[in-house]
Amino acid sequence: MSTITVPAQVPSVADDCEQLRKAFSGWGTNEGLIISILAHRNAAQRKHIRETYAETHGEDLLKSLDKELSQDFERIVLLWTLDPSERDALLANEATKRWTSSNQVLVEIACTRSSQELLLARQAYHTRFKKSLEEDVAYHTTGDFRKVKTLRNCVDVDLSKRNLWFYPACILPGEEVSVLIGILLVDILQLLLPLVSSYRYEGDEVNMTLAKSEAKILHQKISEKAYNDDDIIRVLATRSKAQINATLNQYKNEFGNDINKDLKTDPKDEFLAVLRATVKCLTYPEKYFEKVLRLAINKLGTDEGALTRVVATRAEVDMKAIKGEYHKRNSVPLDRAIAKDTNGDYEDMLLALIGHEDA
Amino acid sequence: MSTITVPAQVPSVADDCEQLRKAFSGWGTNEGLIISILAHRNAAQRKHIRETYAETHGEDLLKSLDKELSQDFERIVLLWTLDPSERDALLANEATKRWTSSNQVLVEIACTRSSQELLLARQAYHTRFKKSLEEDVAYHTTGDFRKVKTLRNCVDVDLSKRNLWFYPACILPGEEVSVLIGILLVDILQLLLPLVSSYRYEGDEVNMTLAKSEAKILHQKISEKAYNDDDIIRVLATRSKAQINATLNQYKNEFGNDINKDLKTDPKDEFLAVLRATVKCLTYPEKYFEKVLRLAINKLGTDEGALTRVVATRAEVDMKAIKGEYHKRNSVPLDRAIAKDTNGDYEDMLLALIGHEDA
Repeated sequence: MSTITVPAQVPSVADDCEQLRKAFSGWGTNEGLIISILAHRNAAQRKHIRETYAETHGEDLLKSLDKELSQDFERIVLLWTLDPSERDALLANEATKRWTSSNQVLVEIACTRSSQELLLARQAYHTRFKKSLEEDVAYHTTGDFRKVKTLRNCVDVDLSKRNLWFYPACILPGEEVSVLIGILLVDILQLLLPLVSSYRYEGDEVNMTLAKSEAKILHQKISEKAYNDDDIIRVLATRSKAQINATLNQYKNEFGNDINKDLKTDPKDEFLAVLRATVKCLTYPEKYFEKVLRLAINKLGTDEGALTRVVATRAEVDMKAIKGEYHKRNSVPLDRAIAKDTNGDYEDMLLALIGHEDA
Repeated sequence: MSTITVPAQVPSVADDCEQLRKAFSGWGTNEGLIISILAHRNAAQRKHIRETYAETHGEDLLKSLDKELSQDFERIVLLWTLDPSERDALLANEATKRWTSSNQVLVEIACTRSSQELLLARQAYHTRFKKSLEEDVAYHTTGDFRKVKTLRNCVDVDLSKRNLWFYPACILPGEEVSVLIGILLVDILQLLLPLVSSYRYEGDEVNMTLAKSEAKILHQKISEKAYNDDDIIRVLATRSKAQINATLNQYKNEFGNDINKDLKTDPKDEFLAVLRATVKCLTYPEKYFEKVLRLAINKLGTDEGALTRVVATRAEVDMKAIKGEYHKRNSVPLDRAIAKDTNGDYEDMLLALIGHEDA
């Protein structure tokens, strides 16, 4: 399902390194040459190139790229060149530092990777950041937020006010604002922590009795608007993907709606958005990524961060399926949409990675 | 630090299998022969024996052993013969089914194993039970217990009543009893779930600023008797062992007591006991295991379950250190204590595993 094209006759690793070195040398940088090599090598080949480059030139290829390139093009080349597990570790680490907008990145990494891939990302996190991913995620649930949590369980806070997340200061006095923000963060983090710590069973056995009983539990909690209930989090964070799929099918059969429809009572509620992303990532990753791309491209001023992340992380995984979904949903092929919205080397690199013919 | 003795000249695997088969055949079983082989082979050798035995005799060695042996001797031979990760998976699975007495087994497995060993146990759990360990641990936090949890956060429940755990029915009417039991279970499970899901960083780097600030947080929560506070759980469940050690040293320097002393305000409180076990397993595993052995042996009617578990799981890890601790703390060598309390083949097997000279 990879969209990159690797030439039938791949040059030797030494040649690739030599060419890359050439692309960096002299006045200016030969971006086209960089793309023609790196965008057309698979993960194992890129890893080999990076190792050989370091041995030959005494410098990490990523450092050379960092010196030569800039902006969006630099970002996609660097992310792409990284080993998938290192890339995930880096993206996750960035996400732990900027909560508001990047919860979904953690959901993506926790829920669309295989158990083994998530584990490798956690190992790469150790190596690179000298601590654990769950440590950094959990750390954000400390201090003031804790008090707020107790408060929320005791006081009857109107949860429909969750959408104040986006503009609390305009509406409420300081105290109440921080309470509401705290509640949101705690909700989200209590979902994210077990998600990133999970090591799901990956067999396709399904327990139908359990699927029925848990579908009922989910429906009951959702009817009560107890969206952050521990049972909802437990099912989504610990059950195998096959089991969750069976449970959500039961949910639909028994109660009529897709669960995500029932989780959309308030489109501005950030916690519900994270919950829906979790469901989508676990059950239809290609649809989830199609939507991320759609929103990134249709945005007034493209969201290059999201576009780059999805292309770099999915090109070798399920980009073919994502392209299919994109075309169906937007009546325009993904490559044409990207070409319209981006330009220069950045555009060329994106198109090469999603398998555009001329790239 | 292993206490088993492997002969300088190990017979071939085929010979070992042949001898084992001989021990099972005819009238009666030759237990001495079984001990002389299995108790004197390391994990890799036992694994090899098990594989070859299955190939040669078309039956899992464990099944043959199960047919021939019984009671405590059977249990220790079976546990010992299992691969360490399979053994941990089995012990953990048993523990998820019998909560009251076996929370400590989950703490042991989560906190005294290396990150890699815990991971291998989680993988073995997938293979053997077709689901994940965290799934089974989390599942116990459902249903009625949830309601109770909300209640506990809102109602000012007297936490000193936690020791009613052991004899609630004698003191309180039904309703209150189930509330108290529920509170305890939820507390304990909310600690166990992140512990078994952890994949700790294992480097020895220590952040002293963090150690100081987290020691202060721990002390504050403990002073408030907020033992189940999320911060306490977060620090113990996610920080590296080196970092936790630094934090607890700071705690002692700054506030005068070992943290476990401050966690002993009520010796009958089951949650505090689990918390102390967690601290001990993370920082002084050999002292933790010494105490488990001491209590198992000194009990009126030896606790064979605990004795067997500790010997089978630690013989190849740190039994030498545990023996040292035991002798120091009890003024009697562990082998003499075991010989006094047990007998027959069970005694012989235990003594062989802890490296008793004649065994």
